[in-house]
Amino acid sequence: MDALKARILKEGRNLGGGILKVDGFINHQIDPVLMNECGRELAHRFAPAHATKVLTAEISGIAPALSTAQHLGIPVVYARKTRPITMPDQVLLTIAPSHTKHRTVELIVSPEYVSPSDRVLIVDDFLATGQTILGLARLADAAGAAVVGIGVVIEKAFEGGRGVLAPLGVPIEALAIITDMSGERIVLA
Amino acid sequence: MDALKARILKEGRNLGGGILKVDGFINHQIDPVLMNECGRELAHRFAPAHATKVLTAEISGIAPALSTAQHLGIPVVYARKTRPITMPDQVLLTIAPSHTKHRTVELIVSPEYVSPSDRVLIVDDFLATGQTILGLARLADAAGAAVVGIGVVIEKAFEGGRGVLAPLGVPIEALAIITDMSGERIVLA
Repeated sequence: MDALKARILKEGRNLGGGILKVDGFINHQIDPVLMNECGRELAHRFAPAHATKVLTAEISGIAPALSTAQHLGIPVVYARKTRPITMPDQVLLTIAPSHTKHRTVELIVSPEYVSPSDRVLIVDDFLATGQTILGLARLADAAGAAVVGIGVVIEKAFEGGRGVLAPLGVPIEALAIITDMSGERIVLA
Repeated sequence: MDALKARILKEGRNLGGGILKVDGFINHQIDPVLMNECGRELAHRFAPAHATKVLTAEISGIAPALSTAQHLGIPVVYARKTRPITMPDQVLLTIAPSHTKHRTVELIVSPEYVSPSDRVLIVDDFLATGQTILGLARLADAAGAAVVGIGVVIEKAFEGGRGVLAPLGVPIEALAIITDMSGERIVLA
């Protein structure tokens, strides 16, 4: 997606250690026009998958997942990292290591909203090590649902997540793929 | 907003103690069609305010704030509750008591994205005690920006937040106002 790639090159900042700062348009401040275009493009790419539900993880997955869901016309569920008081006692929970936080996080979904008849499209802002998305796939699986695709805004290809997710056997789409951040620059595919 | 009110009456659940469960369409699963209509309506009501930025708090404020920002064509900033590694060392931070969590939370905004020239529209999913929104207003004020309005999806009028926010002297709009949850029912204005 050219508009996204141009924005990453213009405003993204390589903070070193593989950390990409895109707080100005994705992670803290969101450009709603660009995000809407990202959602439109992901919806377009996954139209053949006939998803019934978009699944993401709070916090920064919400915006791209909602935008994608809007264009697909299907609900989005965001996995919580802490169990809110409105959730039932019986939940689906998995543990995922968080690369950027240097700890593990819980991903929690209520079985009320993901069911065996669901075809789940997983959407997130980043694909890095793939651990969060793998956790979301485990939650979908625990609910008896089928994962039909994985879509992300930005893939950091050098962190190997695509290989981690390959055994799921579903299409993986990234709107921008970063191949190298080892120097000071951001190198896009 | 009739579609929202009908949905609250049909699917919302009064869990007692003033807790409203709307996890099926706002807080855990999001109905993107309804959320888009909420954003459209808030954008319409605040068009005269000429906001330059929407400000909300993670997590559940992101969806209505993004939808509103999309219809206004302006960026949205979501205050973080933990400081991500991509943020500068110098941030704007305030403490807000969280009614539903029975503790205080930090609300953190980078000064990179809210500036003295901004006209800030605060959007959140709920107006209850008003403390989160008051915290967001303090952040805007600390950045030197002007708060020009407050828009929420659901107001729990019986928690008194509107009175708490009145000294800000800005228009407050709620798309659905709940006047009573003291019994088993949900009573809308």
